[in-house]
Amino acid sequence: MAGNTFGTLFRITTFGESHGDAVGVIVDGVMPGLDLTEADVQKELDRRKPGQSDVTTPRREPDTVHILSGVFEGKTTGTPILLILYNQDADPSAYKEIKNLFRPGHADYTYLKKYGYRDYRGSGRASGRETSARVAAGAIAKKILVRRGAAITAFTLAVGGIAGKKFAPEAIENNPLRAADPEAAAAMLERVTKAKEAGDSVGGVVECRIRGVPAGLGEPVFDKLEADLAKAMLSIGATKGIEFGAGFKAAEMSGSEHNDELTENGFASNRAGGILGGISTGQEIVFRVAVKPTSSIAVAQNTIDLEGRAAAIQTHGRHDPCICPRIVPVVEAMAALVIEDHWKRQEALRI
Amino acid sequence: MAGNTFGTLFRITTFGESHGDAVGVIVDGVMPGLDLTEADVQKELDRRKPGQSDVTTPRREPDTVHILSGVFEGKTTGTPILLILYNQDADPSAYKEIKNLFRPGHADYTYLKKYGYRDYRGSGRASGRETSARVAAGAIAKKILVRRGAAITAFTLAVGGIAGKKFAPEAIENNPLRAADPEAAAAMLERVTKAKEAGDSVGGVVECRIRGVPAGLGEPVFDKLEADLAKAMLSIGATKGIEFGAGFKAAEMSGSEHNDELTENGFASNRAGGILGGISTGQEIVFRVAVKPTSSIAVAQNTIDLEGRAAAIQTHGRHDPCICPRIVPVVEAMAALVIEDHWKRQEALRI
Amino acid sequence: MAGNTFGTLFRITTFGESHGDAVGVIVDGVMPGLDLTEADVQKELDRRKPGQSDVTTPRREPDTVHILSGVFEGKTTGTPILLILYNQDADPSAYKEIKNLFRPGHADYTYLKKYGYRDYRGSGRASGRETSARVAAGAIAKKILVRRGAAITAFTLAVGGIAGKKFAPEAIENNPLRAADPEAAAAMLERVTKAKEAGDSVGGVVECRIRGVPAGLGEPVFDKLEADLAKAMLSIGATKGIEFGAGFKAAEMSGSEHNDELTENGFASNRAGGILGGISTGQEIVFRVAVKPTSSIAVAQNTIDLEGRAAAIQTHGRHDPCICPRIVPVVEAMAALVIEDHWKRQEALRI
Amino acid sequence: MAGNTFGTLFRITTFGESHGDAVGVIVDGVMPGLDLTEADVQKELDRRKPGQSDVTTPRREPDTVHILSGVFEGKTTGTPILLILYNQDADPSAYKEIKNLFRPGHADYTYLKKYGYRDYRGSGRASGRETSARVAAGAIAKKILVRRGAAITAFTLAVGGIAGKKFAPEAIENNPLRAADPEAAAAMLERVTKAKEAGDSVGGVVECRIRGVPAGLGEPVFDKLEADLAKAMLSIGATKGIEFGAGFKAAEMSGSEHNDELTENGFASNRAGGILGGISTGQEIVFRVAVKPTSSIAVAQNTIDLEGRAAAIQTHGRHDPCICPRIVPVVEAMAALVIEDHWKRQEALRI
Repeated sequence: MAGNTFGTLFRITTFGESHGDAVGVIVDGVMPGLDLTEADVQKELDRRKPGQSDVTTPRREPDTVHILSGVFEGKTTGTPILLILYNQDADPSAYKEIKNLFRPGHADYTYLKKYGYRDYRGSGRASGRETSARVAAGAIAKKILVRRGAAITAFTLAVGGIAGKKFAPEAIENNPLRAADPEAAAAMLERVTKAKEAGDSVGGVVECRIRGVPAGLGEPVFDKLEADLAKAMLSIGATKGIEFGAGFKAAEMSGSEHNDELTENGFASNRAGGILGGISTGQEIVFRVAVKPTSSIAVAQNTIDLEGRAAAIQTHGRHDPCICPRIVPVVEAMAALVIEDHWKRQEALRI
Repeated sequence: MAGNTFGTLFRITTFGESHGDAVGVIVDGVMPGLDLTEADVQKELDRRKPGQSDVTTPRREPDTVHILSGVFEGKTTGTPILLILYNQDADPSAYKEIKNLFRPGHADYTYLKKYGYRDYRGSGRASGRETSARVAAGAIAKKILVRRGAAITAFTLAVGGIAGKKFAPEAIENNPLRAADPEAAAAMLERVTKAKEAGDSVGGVVECRIRGVPAGLGEPVFDKLEADLAKAMLSIGATKGIEFGAGFKAAEMSGSEHNDELTENGFASNRAGGILGGISTGQEIVFRVAVKPTSSIAVAQNTIDLEGRAAAIQTHGRHDPCICPRIVPVVEAMAALVIEDHWKRQEALRI
Repeated sequence: MAGNTFGTLFRITTFGESHGDAVGVIVDGVMPGLDLTEADVQKELDRRKPGQSDVTTPRREPDTVHILSGVFEGKTTGTPILLILYNQDADPSAYKEIKNLFRPGHADYTYLKKYGYRDYRGSGRASGRETSARVAAGAIAKKILVRRGAAITAFTLAVGGIAGKKFAPEAIENNPLRAADPEAAAAMLERVTKAKEAGDSVGGVVECRIRGVPAGLGEPVFDKLEADLAKAMLSIGATKGIEFGAGFKAAEMSGSEHNDELTENGFASNRAGGILGGISTGQEIVFRVAVKPTSSIAVAQNTIDLEGRAAAIQTHGRHDPCICPRIVPVVEAMAALVIEDHWKRQEALRI
Repeated sequence: MAGNTFGTLFRITTFGESHGDAVGVIVDGVMPGLDLTEADVQKELDRRKPGQSDVTTPRREPDTVHILSGVFEGKTTGTPILLILYNQDADPSAYKEIKNLFRPGHADYTYLKKYGYRDYRGSGRASGRETSARVAAGAIAKKILVRRGAAITAFTLAVGGIAGKKFAPEAIENNPLRAADPEAAAAMLERVTKAKEAGDSVGGVVECRIRGVPAGLGEPVFDKLEADLAKAMLSIGATKGIEFGAGFKAAEMSGSEHNDELTENGFASNRAGGILGGISTGQEIVFRVAVKPTSSIAVAQNTIDLEGRAAAIQTHGRHDPCICPRIVPVVEAMAALVIEDHWKRQEALRI
C-alpha cells in the first residue's frame, strides 16, 4: 500500500517529482461553498518557494499554482480540488555527473533499494520540492481554520545550537531565518552564512504553536492528536524528532513538577503542550521539530557508486545551507491538515 | 472517524476499558499457516503486567490471554484473530471518591470535553491497561519478524535524568527498570524508590533498537518509516517525544558532521538512525521515546471539580512510580506492528 | 489487506468461526451518550437465529449477545463496543466425514485455494453464522436510524419463482418465510417444504425498502449510495445479484419511460429506487437481492476430494432449505450500517 | 469522508468536471519498472471517447492523455502517476438555458441537495466524462493483468430488450453497439437509431467476462470479490443492477440445479459466475450490469425549477441515445482495477 495519501475526512493525495513536469495535490473533503482563489494558495507557496534570500537555494521556481477542479465561480463545490504547479526551472542535466553516486545523507541509496530504480534528477519524490504540494493543500486547511478562529504559527527556534530566547511573532517574516527572536536571528544568520561559505550546511529546530483549538480534538487510542501531528511532522523530509510541551525535559521531571494543575481560571501551566491523553486541552498546542542539516553539501565526502566502488563526492546543486526557514511553512501546512482533519472527526463523532 | 484501528496490511483494532469486562484486540492480515499458541502471546504480556516488582503498581491482573478465533489446530487460518483478556482485579470503587475531580496530568478533563461523558473508573480507555491489547497483537508481529530474521530490543535508557552509558542487552530483563546498563539501573532504582516514597513519580527515556530490517521499508511521502514509528510511539499514553538516530542533536550539527558516509563495507556511521528519506537503510534502526512522569501521584495538587470549583486532590490508586519498565514491551510491540506492516507493504509494492 | 472491516465513520470489524469459540464484532464510531442494552441487540439476533421454524436449520444457538466494552451505566461512551456471541451448539464432529471433500456450491474449494488451508468445521468464516456479528452491529445502527426517523424493512419477495404481489409489512414477522404477501407466503412455504423433503433447497429474492432517508446521502464518485449498498449486499454469503428501483427492467426501457418526472409535489414516480447520481433523492430507497439456493443439500452430487479424485457427496448437516427468511435481518443490518455511515459522512462534509 | 478514492493496494483518486479545465486521476501503488507510455493509456481512452459513431454524442473531445508524474525514461518509478486530460470542447453556454431546471433522471436535484450548490455545466462530476479518468487508470491495471495472463472482455449483451444470443468476441469492436453478436448488433442499432430519431434514449445490459484469474482472489468477509466488483460497477453512472453467473435466475432454482459439481477435470459448470464464498474459483468470472436509458432526452418532460415551480424541459445537449457501447470500456477498466487490487491483496496475504 503506497503512502501518498494523508488524512481521513480532510484528505490529500500528492504527486510529482522535483525535475519532472509538475508537482501537485488532490484535496478531497473540502466543504462546498468556501471562497477559494489561487491567491489564497499562492501566498503560502511564496513563503516556501526557493530564492527568497541569500541563505536559500537559487533555483528559480515561481511555484505558480493552478486550480484545475473543484472550484466553480470562486467557490468550492465539495468535489476534489486539484492544485498543480508546473515545474519551470527543472534542470536535470546538473545531476548527470552524480547519477551513479549515492550522496551521503540523502535518499538516493534507499530509493534504489526500495524501488530497484532511481530517479537521479534532483531526488525525484525525495526532493524538498514535494513539500510544495503540502503547502498548497495546507493553505486550504489554514483558510478554514482561520474561519474557525484558530491560528498556527511556526518559526525557527534554533539553528546550529543557537537558540532564540523570546517569541516575537511579528519578527518571523522579517528575517531570512524565520526566527521569532530578532537578536538570535542575527546570530543564526551568521552561523548559516559561515556554513554556506564553507560549502557546508547546518541543522535547527522549528517550533510550532497553535492557538484557538478547542478541547476535545484527537481520536484515542491510535489517532491521538500527538500521534497524528508526530506522523505529519516526521513525514517531512529532513526531520529527525519531535517533542510536545516539556518534551524530552519531561523525562527528567517528577510528576509533581510536570503535572499541570487546574484552577478556577483554567490550567495553571502548559507543560503538556496542550494535549492530554492524546486530546487537545483547549490550551495552546506547542511542539518542536528537529531538522537535520541539509545533506547536499559541497564538502568532499566518501561514498560509493552503483557498483559499490569507493568514490568521492561533492554536491554542486542549488541547495539551502539551512532548510529551517523553508520548512516553517511546511510545518504549518501539515499542522493545519492534521488539526482540520481532527476538527471534522470530532464533529462527526458527536453527531 | 474513530481511531481504534492501526496498520494497513497487518492491522489491529482494539477495545476495552481498564475497569470494564475485558480488553482485547482483533488482528487482521496474519498469513495463514503460522504456528500460534496462547503461550506465544502470554510471554509478552507477562512483561507488561502489573505487580512485577516493588516499583510497579500492585494491581493483580494475571493478564491471561484467550485466543477466540483465527487459529485452528494450532495454526493461524488467515482470518481475524481475537485476543481477549478478561479483567479480574478491576476495582472501580477505589475511584468513587475522585469521580468528580479532574486529576492533573491525566486525561479526565479531555475525555470529558471530547465525549461529553466520563468513565471515571481508572480512566477507561485512557488507562495504561489499554496497552495490553497492543502487546498481545505485537506478540504475533514479533513472532513473524523473528522468522524473518529481525529483532527488536527496547530498554530504559534514562530515568529522572540518570542515563545509562552502555548497552548490555542481557541485563534488561534482570533489573526492575529494564535498563540495559546494570550500574545505571541501580542508580535509577534508587531514584524511583525515592519518588515512590515521596508519593511522587518520575519520567524517563526508552530507547528502541531494531536489527535485521532490510533496506527499502517505508512508504514515501506520508507513510515514511519514521513517520509511522513516530505515530505508533506517540499513540502510547505518557509519551511526549521521539527522536531518531542523532535526533535533536542533529539540529546542532553541520551536514559534514551529520551525514553518514558510505564505504565499500557499507555505511561508516549511523547518525540517521537507520532511516534515510523515510526508508530503512538496512542498518540498525534506533530511536528514543520521552516518557513523562506518571500523572497519578499521592502528592497533594490543586485541581477543580466537575462544576469548576477549586479542590485539592491526592491519588491513592495503584500506580507505577515510573512507567518506563512497563512501557518497554509496549514500545517493542508497537515497533513490531509498524515493521511487519511495512515489510508486507514493501513486498506488495514490488509484486 | 484483509477484508473484515466495513464502513468509514461508523465502522465495524468482525471475527469468529462457525464452530470455534465465538463470533463477534467491534463497532467503532458510535456517538457517546446513546442508550444501549444487550436487549436492543438481542431482539435483532433473535430474528436471525436458527431454529425459528420448520424451514430453518435445527442448530440450537441461543445467540446470546454480551457487550464487553464501550457501554458504561447503560450508555455508550464513544469508545469501541465489543459485541460477542459465544458458540454453544458447535458440533464439528458432524463435519469429520466430509473433511476431505469439497461440497459443490460451497466455499470449501476457494478457501483452500486462498489460504492453503481449510477449516472444515462447518465452513469456518464462510458460514452464515458469521452474519450474526453483522446483525448485532446493525442493531446499533438501526437504533440510531430510528432516532433519526428512518425505517428499514426487508422481506422475502420471491422463493423458487413464486413472487409476492403485495406489500403488507405487518405480515412479515407472521410467516416463516418473512414474506410481505400472506397469500404468496403460503405457496412459498409449500415450495420450501417440498424442497426440504427432497433433501434439496431453493433460492429467492429479498427486497429492502428504506424510508425516511433525506436527500443528499452518497459520496460520488466511488462511494455512491448504490455502490456501497451493492457492496454491502454482495458481501453477504449466498447473494448473487442486486438491482435498484426498476433495475434490470430499466435496461429494456426508453428514457421517456424510465425518467422520474418532478412536480410541485415532488417526484411523480420512483423508478430510480430513490437514488440519482449515487445520491439519495429523499424518496423511498428500494432494492432487491438475488439469493441462491442453499448449497448444502442432501441430494447426492459429484465432487472431488482433496487429492482430486472423483467422489460422491451428500451433506447431512443442519441446514436451511431456503435461507431467505434468515437473510432478511442481515439485509436490514447491512443496509442500516451503510445508511448510518453515509448519514454521518454527509453531515461531516457540510461542516 | 469524501468518496473519490478507490482501491487499496492499487489505488486511484480522481478529479475534474465535465466542463471545467481538466479531468484526471492519480494512480498509486503501481510497481516500479513497468513500461508505460501515453499510447498505452490512449488506446483505451479512444474506445470511450465521444463521436465514435452516429449513436454516440457528437461532443468532440480528443481525450488526449498526459502523464505528468511517476514515469521516467518510459518506466514507472513506483511513485504516484498523474494522468490528466485537459478539456477542449467544453461548452458550458449550452447549459445556461436549463441552469435553473432539474433534468428528470439526472443528478441535478441530488447534487444540489447534497452540496447545497450546483455546477450546472453539463453535470460537473456527475457527467459521464468523469469516467475517462477511470478508463485511463484502468489501462494501467489492464496492462499489468495482461502480463499476468488475464483478459477482460466486456460487451453490450442487450439493448432495449433485444439480447445477443452468441459470443463472438472479434465482433465487439466492429459494430457501433459493441455487441458480441453481429446479428443482434444490427437489430440493436435499429432500436437505438429509432430512439435517437424520437429524441429518446434506450437502456441495455453490459456483460463482462474475465479469464485467467487464479483461484483465491477476494477478501472475506466484506471485501469479497463479488462485493468489490458490485461496488465498482454500481459506482459507474447510469448503472442500476448487477448479477453474477446465473444471477437473478439462481433465485428460481433449487440447490441441485444451481450447484456446480466438481469432477477430476475441474468444475462441470459455471452457474456461480466464477466466484464461490466471495473468492474466485479459477473459472471465468461472469457478470452482467443493468444500464438505464440515458436520462438526457429531447422529449418534453415535466419538471420543476430551483424555486419548485412546475416547468417543462427538453434537453438539447450532445448526448448518447444509448450509453452501453461507451460504458463497455468503463466496465472493463473498473473490473481491471478490482482484479489487480485483489491480486496484490492475495499475494500480500500469503507473504
